[in-house]
Amino acid sequence: MNEQLIKKTVENVLREYLRPSDDMTLAAAQALSRKVRERAKELGVNAVVAIANKGGNPVLVECSDNSFIASYDIALNKAYTSVALKMTTKELSQLAKPGGSLYGIQFTNDGKIVIFGGGEPLKNSKGEIIGGLGVSGGTEVQDTGLAEYGREIFEKGST
Amino acid sequence: MNEQLIKKTVENVLREYLRPSDDMTLAAAQALSRKVRERAKELGVNAVVAIANKGGNPVLVECSDNSFIASYDIALNKAYTSVALKMTTKELSQLAKPGGSLYGIQFTNDGKIVIFGGGEPLKNSKGEIIGGLGVSGGTEVQDTGLAEYGREIFEKGST
Amino acid sequence: MNEQLIKKTVENVLREYLRPSDDMTLAAAQALSRKVRERAKELGVNAVVAIANKGGNPVLVECSDNSFIASYDIALNKAYTSVALKMTTKELSQLAKPGGSLYGIQFTNDGKIVIFGGGEPLKNSKGEIIGGLGVSGGTEVQDTGLAEYGREIFEKGST
Amino acid sequence: MNEQLIKKTVENVLREYLRPSDDMTLAAAQALSRKVRERAKELGVNAVVAIANKGGNPVLVECSDNSFIASYDIALNKAYTSVALKMTTKELSQLAKPGGSLYGIQFTNDGKIVIFGGGEPLKNSKGEIIGGLGVSGGTEVQDTGLAEYGREIFEKGST
Repeated sequence: MNEQLIKKTVENVLREYLRPSDDMTLAAAQALSRKVRERAKELGVNAVVAIANKGGNPVLVECSDNSFIASYDIALNKAYTSVALKMTTKELSQLAKPGGSLYGIQFTNDGKIVIFGGGEPLKNSKGEIIGGLGVSGGTEVQDTGLAEYGREIFEKGST
Repeated sequence: MNEQLIKKTVENVLREYLRPSDDMTLAAAQALSRKVRERAKELGVNAVVAIANKGGNPVLVECSDNSFIASYDIALNKAYTSVALKMTTKELSQLAKPGGSLYGIQFTNDGKIVIFGGGEPLKNSKGEIIGGLGVSGGTEVQDTGLAEYGREIFEKGST
Repeated sequence: MNEQLIKKTVENVLREYLRPSDDMTLAAAQALSRKVRERAKELGVNAVVAIANKGGNPVLVECSDNSFIASYDIALNKAYTSVALKMTTKELSQLAKPGGSLYGIQFTNDGKIVIFGGGEPLKNSKGEIIGGLGVSGGTEVQDTGLAEYGREIFEKGST
Repeated sequence: MNEQLIKKTVENVLREYLRPSDDMTLAAAQALSRKVRERAKELGVNAVVAIANKGGNPVLVECSDNSFIASYDIALNKAYTSVALKMTTKELSQLAKPGGSLYGIQFTNDGKIVIFGGGEPLKNSKGEIIGGLGVSGGTEVQDTGLAEYGREIFEKGST
């Protein structure tokens, strides 16, 4: 194999390999959202599921029938928050409590920071955050569980 | 048949008949969006497709890979505008021109009114507006054509 | 060369090759901004220079002494607009004129769309948009010229 | 020496003497930001550093590679808060706690008031506040420490 051939081969492999995991795609977001909504349905939750890419911009928002109108913004902002702060909104909820080190962060970013559970950053196989998942519609415990479920199946590649 | 039985029978029929077309569902929105994105892909347009329900609230937003970041808000607001003003954004664009009867409407609703083509109200079989479709990503002519295509197939029931 | 060696070599090459041009870095933004401000100074313009990454998020904003207070938002939003719509704000200014196909787009994205010259998308060596440059402080002709100058030297790699 | 000559001489001296310390300059902001980012790097913090002038308007914002998207607004608003309230955001955090004398201040200024540490007012040699420094990216303790470090070296003239 000469250098040119190696280069070309590598480029082709990389095109396949890097792109899909480099940033969130619509197809990946759709597959993940479907799984999360199925699980939500089992729990009797009319969930809104939002998925952002690594720039914090939305890729997909799906509102289950009869979901809360308010859940749209909440799910979207949970997805944003997870990417923008590189942590789950559950972790943030501890830091943002009165007396916590980040108390007040919910006011700093045009109301886009959510400080209760249901938002999870999503990593690719290289461990890089390439998106965020936000779920809203149930109790905080349910939303947190659904988002954690979504993150797990996404990172296992089982969506 | 007594009155009770008649009432119950009618209710059941109506429940089946009316519900699906009473308001936009996520399933209907997904089917419509897929068709519109397929058509967009044929045209080489990386479309963002947004669908609102009859309350003007979003049901689904899907951002094709490599779509414009700005198209998210634009598609969403086209869907909202179509429902909120019960007309296509193309029709509105004529009224909102300098000198037009609605010139200035783009300032009245927190920036949510879009005054160029690509937004279409969606009617059920009874002719009632039950949602709105917004498409963004191509030229105004392309977006308008895609939204009109979406409205047509939705209203024909061919999604 | 065995497979392991090829893999390692390739990884090293890629790390060098992909990262710098994959998204805007602070170092690249600083180098570009300095060049643009130097040129602005020669023209007697107190420029604000803003540079966004490919997600439309800001990387660097530098306000020359005695620049307009308003130029901060304008430069930042020019950078955002160039990335979010993948075109120069000068191109957009034509489409957004009364009678143009995108007239009204300046109201659709929370006031972040700028429709006069001075914003330019920035491409890497593979022709992908990896950021945006916004310049504000002079006349529209000056800002447009400065942003075009910035884009040219960035894309030539001469920053 | 007549009165005119004395007046002119004094004016010239003052122009030289006062200007540099009268308000934040871009050059001073760049020098300060570089020092703060160097220190942050030593701590493993990908910091966003923002510097405002005495009008509370931004002079410089630099986002280190891989910094939090949310840190942009937070650092900027910390710099603003320090100037706008003439105190550190750490001091403010005490006053803004539930039960504190300024509880609720985080809602009064369009979400621009930050009530956790990492913002410091910057004084000139005459003890006048001429700007503000905001740092975001680490823990609250790290951000506070970095901002205090920045204020100290700025006020010692060792930037």
